[in-house]
Amino acid sequence: MSNRFGQVFCVTTWGEAHGPAIGAVIDGCPAGLELCEADIQKELDLRRPGTGKHVSPRKEPDQAQILSGVFEGVTTGMPISIIIYNQDVRSKPYEAIKDVLRPGHANFTYLQKYGVFDYRGGGRASARETATRVAAGSVAEKLIGLSGILIETSVETGDIDKAMQEGDSVGGVVTVRVSGMLAGLGAPVFDRLEADLAKALMSIPASKGFEIGQGFRAAEMKGSEHNDGFDENGPSSNLAGGTLGGISTGEDLICRVAFKPTSSIKKEQKTTTLSGRPVQFSLPDGHRHDPCVALRAAPVVKSMVSLVLADHVLIHRHSKIALLPALL
Amino acid sequence: MSNRFGQVFCVTTWGEAHGPAIGAVIDGCPAGLELCEADIQKELDLRRPGTGKHVSPRKEPDQAQILSGVFEGVTTGMPISIIIYNQDVRSKPYEAIKDVLRPGHANFTYLQKYGVFDYRGGGRASARETATRVAAGSVAEKLIGLSGILIETSVETGDIDKAMQEGDSVGGVVTVRVSGMLAGLGAPVFDRLEADLAKALMSIPASKGFEIGQGFRAAEMKGSEHNDGFDENGPSSNLAGGTLGGISTGEDLICRVAFKPTSSIKKEQKTTTLSGRPVQFSLPDGHRHDPCVALRAAPVVKSMVSLVLADHVLIHRHSKIALLPALL
Amino acid sequence: MSNRFGQVFCVTTWGEAHGPAIGAVIDGCPAGLELCEADIQKELDLRRPGTGKHVSPRKEPDQAQILSGVFEGVTTGMPISIIIYNQDVRSKPYEAIKDVLRPGHANFTYLQKYGVFDYRGGGRASARETATRVAAGSVAEKLIGLSGILIETSVETGDIDKAMQEGDSVGGVVTVRVSGMLAGLGAPVFDRLEADLAKALMSIPASKGFEIGQGFRAAEMKGSEHNDGFDENGPSSNLAGGTLGGISTGEDLICRVAFKPTSSIKKEQKTTTLSGRPVQFSLPDGHRHDPCVALRAAPVVKSMVSLVLADHVLIHRHSKIALLPALL
Amino acid sequence: MSNRFGQVFCVTTWGEAHGPAIGAVIDGCPAGLELCEADIQKELDLRRPGTGKHVSPRKEPDQAQILSGVFEGVTTGMPISIIIYNQDVRSKPYEAIKDVLRPGHANFTYLQKYGVFDYRGGGRASARETATRVAAGSVAEKLIGLSGILIETSVETGDIDKAMQEGDSVGGVVTVRVSGMLAGLGAPVFDRLEADLAKALMSIPASKGFEIGQGFRAAEMKGSEHNDGFDENGPSSNLAGGTLGGISTGEDLICRVAFKPTSSIKKEQKTTTLSGRPVQFSLPDGHRHDPCVALRAAPVVKSMVSLVLADHVLIHRHSKIALLPALL
Repeated sequence: MSNRFGQVFCVTTWGEAHGPAIGAVIDGCPAGLELCEADIQKELDLRRPGTGKHVSPRKEPDQAQILSGVFEGVTTGMPISIIIYNQDVRSKPYEAIKDVLRPGHANFTYLQKYGVFDYRGGGRASARETATRVAAGSVAEKLIGLSGILIETSVETGDIDKAMQEGDSVGGVVTVRVSGMLAGLGAPVFDRLEADLAKALMSIPASKGFEIGQGFRAAEMKGSEHNDGFDENGPSSNLAGGTLGGISTGEDLICRVAFKPTSSIKKEQKTTTLSGRPVQFSLPDGHRHDPCVALRAAPVVKSMVSLVLADHVLIHRHSKIALLPALL
Repeated sequence: MSNRFGQVFCVTTWGEAHGPAIGAVIDGCPAGLELCEADIQKELDLRRPGTGKHVSPRKEPDQAQILSGVFEGVTTGMPISIIIYNQDVRSKPYEAIKDVLRPGHANFTYLQKYGVFDYRGGGRASARETATRVAAGSVAEKLIGLSGILIETSVETGDIDKAMQEGDSVGGVVTVRVSGMLAGLGAPVFDRLEADLAKALMSIPASKGFEIGQGFRAAEMKGSEHNDGFDENGPSSNLAGGTLGGISTGEDLICRVAFKPTSSIKKEQKTTTLSGRPVQFSLPDGHRHDPCVALRAAPVVKSMVSLVLADHVLIHRHSKIALLPALL
Repeated sequence: MSNRFGQVFCVTTWGEAHGPAIGAVIDGCPAGLELCEADIQKELDLRRPGTGKHVSPRKEPDQAQILSGVFEGVTTGMPISIIIYNQDVRSKPYEAIKDVLRPGHANFTYLQKYGVFDYRGGGRASARETATRVAAGSVAEKLIGLSGILIETSVETGDIDKAMQEGDSVGGVVTVRVSGMLAGLGAPVFDRLEADLAKALMSIPASKGFEIGQGFRAAEMKGSEHNDGFDENGPSSNLAGGTLGGISTGEDLICRVAFKPTSSIKKEQKTTTLSGRPVQFSLPDGHRHDPCVALRAAPVVKSMVSLVLADHVLIHRHSKIALLPALL
Repeated sequence: MSNRFGQVFCVTTWGEAHGPAIGAVIDGCPAGLELCEADIQKELDLRRPGTGKHVSPRKEPDQAQILSGVFEGVTTGMPISIIIYNQDVRSKPYEAIKDVLRPGHANFTYLQKYGVFDYRGGGRASARETATRVAAGSVAEKLIGLSGILIETSVETGDIDKAMQEGDSVGGVVTVRVSGMLAGLGAPVFDRLEADLAKALMSIPASKGFEIGQGFRAAEMKGSEHNDGFDENGPSSNLAGGTLGGISTGEDLICRVAFKPTSSIKKEQKTTTLSGRPVQFSLPDGHRHDPCVALRAAPVVKSMVSLVLADHVLIHRHSKIALLPALL
């Protein structure tokens, strides 16, 4: 069940970096939403490899195609299947290093768990998988956009130019601000809005930390400093970051995600082969990689927040009889 | 569905602070686990109110009773229903302040979402709810303990004595270390082990941040510093905190949770009533509260980690044919 | 996960026949529904043992108590925990026969699956479990009753008096008619309304068959006989039984459930002990049983239909943008 | 969530009859299963249109392609995406009748529920959707085949030649027999094996009834006739059809599904347009249809039974500590 996200607005993703295609199936998008491939393409283009000097030079048009669930320009309530064919696949360089336990990479744990690993381009462990999250997220974003919800991200990183010169990589932090929030999203106990956001954002490859509002700084504050009071317009400040008791207040939602430095670097590193033989490993020429994964992650962060909010907007409809007029 | 946690080892909790009882139902615990009420009580006693000068003086025996799912000292595979009766219930003081929007409290958002709020003792928004997590977590902990998994927590806080004197509160950070880990727990995409831990821990009341391994510090590191290499015993360091690609390496699992300072303080605060009338609010005498929620949260953190690991240990059984001997 | 039913209006039941109590937790009932214990008791009294000459003489007040989720007479959106204490528990007679593989009974399969079996009163395999379905169903029935949905059942059986005289038992068929139906409940592929009804009703102990509309008779008809046409009011006949393509038409929902004869009979039967020793088994004096399980099942059938419809009424809210005004 | 089936071996299907493609994504198939496209194709060919005089003359190669989750001939534990492109699409004839409420068809209910309907070829309501069930079912069948489970079906129908001559259609019954069953599959309360089979089989288009063992005949029997006793080899007869208390006994699983006569017939029928205008409707020339849907349904029945059993085989692994050696 690990490839499914969301309870009502539910997305299943599939595909490996060097397979014929990757894709997402959205089950639970309401009928009547205007949707076309350009809506998806617009978001995909933001995360596309090969669009700047600080991101991987892989050249992929990443053309999304809608295979089902849309008829005459609107969603039909049926599952929306989106496919992206893999085009710029160069598996050859991976043959040479398939027996190396690459530092910071997942082949070690995949082999522990599954006994097999599709090493070509990192298989399912490749960040390429996140393109399908962006495709699905673009539909979610359009849905919640109907009520005026707007998600913005910004990124802080280390010195990337220097890191590139050194054949190294840097980490970074993505900050999210959601405006136009509806009050009442989330739930009291396990499905708190911040808990679902944390899961969503900590599921992005390379993420290492999540915080909402003052986050770890809150741990060093006093109650009298941290508490948001209320005035006639609702909360009079927003140190909490937009939720109380796990439920959105209607204030802006503010959270941050920490990303580790990219694991693939050109510098030489000590490691072993699968059979335990020590080797000095350095990324062969011809290998593509991003010196800072946080840059590429920002659109993925936006997509995951969209998926969480779309799901909660739909789930929220069940919260009280007053929202169920057809029942009365 | 907000009161349910886990896919296979699945817990549903229920109950309000001042209702007749609170409880948890575990659906999915394998048959054949030795279990008695003392196993649960031991963990409950660790989080019990009234056990130290820094925790709430509410006096609750918190006596857990097993109502089903155990026969002659072992689990039967049937749902395990655990009930804890509420005994020291003093709802009176809450009557007086039920119309106040208490800073940092959830009555505002509950009313937005549900239109009703059981204000007595905070109802379901009370930290009392976490006793049922501990009850369920104790069963999970016993299950994973069979394979040698051991969870330890430690807490760092601000100066609590000073905060108490000032009628204020402080935040804190709970650090978790899990030893005896199995390799292979977790999944590649959405159900990464760190994502499920993040959800679990960010669902605890007052939590504001989560990190694994180097967490937010990783965002300031270079790849050559952060990457864990491998030697003949597996990973040769553990800056990642125990997972790679969302799956456990077998190294210790290390993560941290930030808690805000307790919202209930004795100091006077500016806020309004439900109808928007400005008031100066200070907690009436007779109200109980903890100056540092992180202290009480530590056993809850351990319980939530136990629930995540028990679930993943069971889910892991499906990962490969080689683990399904009855099939072969 | 076997003790949970429903996706949004989600019920978890627990408890054994001779344990201290049985119960149900409803997670997902909208806030604002008027509810009191008498609403539940009314339905429970209909299935109560000891209320007629053809039903088991077990004397149980079956007093339902609401432990959470209701405040000042309305539901709060929090989980509703309902408990029924077991009172007339006579485990003694079961000691004597615990090593017998009773014909038609579940101890054989429980032991195969779980390795342990709480034999006292049949444990979780006892029909007593269905009392918790009725308790939960009564809340569902109240919810869907708001829109005028009304569920009626009738029962046909063999000659019970004769069966009782012979120490034997008879089967029966329960017919359900739901009037006041909403159109649009159900879904196109797996979660067809008739599929979810089939699962719900085939989960009742002793059920052996389900049909909707003409059911097995439809297999012997021609298309020109079976097809319902349309006139200006919708379908002009209702041989389909109230659904088309898995979705309700608004016509009455009509289905039937077959129940086998009660397995517990006084007549002597050939079987073996757990260790395989042949024995002639006849129910000892003092054992209670119903000569026709279908009679007791009728209220359970109504409850399961209520649970399915409540769930689908809530799920239906996501089907189209037009039903999500808060989004627009 | 209506397009998803299964808890652990979980399938999501998508696609419309006249869209570019249809497909299935399997999430939860264990790694290490040998699988190639021929395994899937073999089953698809059995249900393919155009293969006999009694089935629809639509000519579709129905070529299944595996897009992910298989590497070097074995499953990797990653989602298995299977796609089938639609090739013989003739939407034109559907234009002419898109405003007619066709007797026995789903356009009425889809419009009630979703407000839109992809009428081309029946869209998602077309039986073409079942090809994806067969594709997914073939993987499930291969998995459970490892333990020797074998599923066989047989079909009884009315006189099809006569029905074809009259431009009419007939119903039928599909009987399933599963041999090589494992004991212990299923669960005590809601997820009884027969309940999950009932849901699976009643989700197939045109199904109207389900029974296990003696089914509706059991309702007319006495306990002394219906009860299966035990001898030294287990149950000494199998009137129950292979389960007791919702759990498989290891005996053959025997159940039956009733299918209504195909709704699309050439005979003239009375109905209305969407706007309520009465019309005499007869299927235009050039429309394809099957005179007996039960014939085409048999491979789908086998697939759905495979999906249920694969899911339960995996779920069963959690039932007792004794099956979790890695834990001990």
